[in-house]
Formats: sequence, structure tokens, C-alpha cells
Amino acid sequence: MLITFEGIDGAGKSTQVMKLKRHLQERGREVLALREPGGTPVAEEIRELLLESRNDITPVGELLLFAASRAELVQQVIRPALESGSDVILDRFFDSTTAYQGYGRGLDLGMLAEINRIASCGLVPDVTFYLDLTPEDALMRKFSEKSLPLTFDSGELDRMENSGLDFYRRVREGYHAISGKNPERVVMIDALLSPAEIQRRIMESLDALCTKTG
Amino acid sequence: MLITFEGIDGAGKSTQVMKLKRHLQERGREVLALREPGGTPVAEEIRELLLESRNDITPVGELLLFAASRAELVQQVIRPALESGSDVILDRFFDSTTAYQGYGRGLDLGMLAEINRIASCGLVPDVTFYLDLTPEDALMRKFSEKSLPLTFDSGELDRMENSGLDFYRRVREGYHAISGKNPERVVMIDALLSPAEIQRRIMESLDALCTKTG
Repeated sequence: MLITFEGIDGAGKSTQVMKLKRHLQERGREVLALREPGGTPVAEEIRELLLESRNDITPVGELLLFAASRAELVQQVIRPALESGSDVILDRFFDSTTAYQGYGRGLDLGMLAEINRIASCGLVPDVTFYLDLTPEDALMRKFSEKSLPLTFDSGELDRMENSGLDFYRRVREGYHAISGKNPERVVMIDALLSPAEIQRRIMESLDALCTKTG
Repeated sequence: MLITFEGIDGAGKSTQVMKLKRHLQERGREVLALREPGGTPVAEEIRELLLESRNDITPVGELLLFAASRAELVQQVIRPALESGSDVILDRFFDSTTAYQGYGRGLDLGMLAEINRIASCGLVPDVTFYLDLTPEDALMRKFSEKSLPLTFDSGELDRMENSGLDFYRRVREGYHAISGKNPERVVMIDALLSPAEIQRRIMESLDALCTKTG
């Protein structure tokens, strides 16, 4: 099975990826957990390039670099793993492209759908867990984790307030639209629930899916 | 005007790019001559990555990296230059993708058309000069330039014979198909003509085009 996790940063995806990986392994499954961009030598170089050049790159150039990295990961790692019988858990996949580049940055959704199809080589997750969180709650989590004082006049917070929150609100709208259009694939879970309760709902969905598909 | 040159290696593109650039400059035009992939900081890094990893990368990954490099060059260099009134001469553009990745490597032509449209941000050359050469003649040129003995039992030549020539035959077929489908844009010129005669035909075509478009 190909299982993906989606949501804005701070929603708790990596925690749930780890929990799910451990849980499936305890059931005797081979599990590969991966994070984009990266995962092959070429994809790792693309990752560095993306991180280095974030300010000098155009949105379309960035989109195509992410796509190149994804195409490498799908063909060289994910497909072979699935074919060998492993489960693959991904922290972000093509829904992130739609939510961030499409709804967040305003790139054409038809173009993104085409690029997503090409980059993922037609591969679609069996199930996607979308951890839903408001940008305001994400910000609260971020500041409490860093033990920073939550003063709304700090420079960093101002910057996020001014540009970031609007952006992340659009990204969240994007995730809601994706969930609405793909009810058979996407399971939306409130990210403010306890990690244990989120994990319980994830396992419940997976068990239901396994029963359904036999 | 956006003018592109196409053809297999050895067809004499770079010679004609230089000649045309000089000629247009003598007429008082601002001219920018560029070669893909590369031309912006990010595109140069992609170029290095492509050169380094040629053996480890999948065809779709390579396609998307070329596309990313092109998107950067178009948006950050070519478009601004055209908008400021310069002529831009390109040694290869999206027809190379169609000929090499499509006809040569067998990638889906519909997918390539979509990627080409996205990567070039809708930009189409005003005129494309395709220098037509058989792979056999290209090979002859290559060996005579390098002053190598043209012995058909040499290892390098065997390798090109076995895999290369078939590949380049398909690429040439691709260029013929592109020329046939775009008679209003692509001017096919026999690459075995003298460089001076090729240049004469190029200038003749450009003058006719300028008269037509006013």
C-alpha cells in the first residue's frame, strides 16, 4: 500500500508517519517511510538546489524541480518497493503541490494536475491522511515548541502575520478542496486531537480499507 | 525576434548562431545568443546536475530538469530581453526536447508537448532554422574534426554504430516530422551546404519574414 500524509507544517505529520511505520512493522510488514524532495542521489541534489535557491527561482522553475525530484523517487524507489511487497509511507506527495503551488501561490490548477500526473508516473496513493490545522494553531504550536514568547509585536511573527497566514489559509483551503474532490482517497483528521487519538483513527481507516480491498 | 537553431550535433548550429549574431549586430540590433541548458544561476546548477548524473537519472526526471532549466531561462532572461527590444538567438529550444526525448528516446509526444508548453511559458520562436544532416555525415564530420582515423573497427565507432546511429536516425525523423507540422515556423536547410551559403539562406528567410511582418 502507498500511504501519504498531508497538511501544513506543524500539523504533526512526521509524528504520525513514525507511529504508523512502527505499528505496521510490529504487524510484520516491510515499511519504507520517505520524505520529499529527496530520497535518491539526483533527488537529494535537487533538494539542495531548491533549498539554496529558494529566492532566485521562479514558481514554474520550482514546480518543475520538485516534479523532477518526485519522478526520480517514484521510479527508482517507491515503485520498486511497492512491487517487492513493501508498504510505502510518504510525508507529502502530489497533493502538497496542488495545495501549496496551486492554491497557495496561484499557479494554474490544470497545469499542476498535468505535472503531477507526469511526475508521479501515474501513481496514486491508496489512502491519504490529511491532518487539518488552522494556520493560527500551527503558529501557536511553532512558538510554543521553540519556547518563544508569544508576543505579537515581534518581527518574525509580524512577517508571518503579514504574508504567511494568508498564504497558509489558501493552502488549507486547497487541502479542503482536494479532500472534497477525493472522498474515496483522502481521510481528513483534526490535527488538534491527541497524537494517540489521531493514530487510532488512522489505524481504523487502514483496517477498514484492508477489509474492503481484501 | 526569437530565432532558434535546431539539428543534431555536428550540423553546424553554433557556427551559424555566431554568424547570425554578428550580422544582426552589424545592422545595429541588440542581440543575445544563448545555449540550453544554462543561462541563469539556477539553470547553470541544473546543467551541472544533468551532466554529472546522466547515467543515474530516469528519462522523465531528465525531461523535467531540462524543463526547469528552460523555465528559468525563459522567464529570467529571454522574455525580459525580447521585451526590451533585443533579438534572441537560441542554440536549441523545445524542438530539441521533442526530437531527442520524444522521437529519440520514445517518451510520449503528448506529454512532451504539455511539458514544452509549460517550460517555455507559452513562448514560441518567430522562426526556427533546422540544419538537416544524416547521422552518418555527422559522424564523418566528428571524426574528421578530431583527425581520428575513420576505421570502422574502432571501439568508439562501434558503440556509436550499434546504439548511436539508430538513435540519431530517430531524432532526425523527429526533426523532419516537426518541420512538416510547422511549415510556417521551421526552415529546413541542408547542413552539407557551405557555411556561407547556409548563412545566405538564413538571412534571406529573415528578410522575407521581416518584410511580411512589417
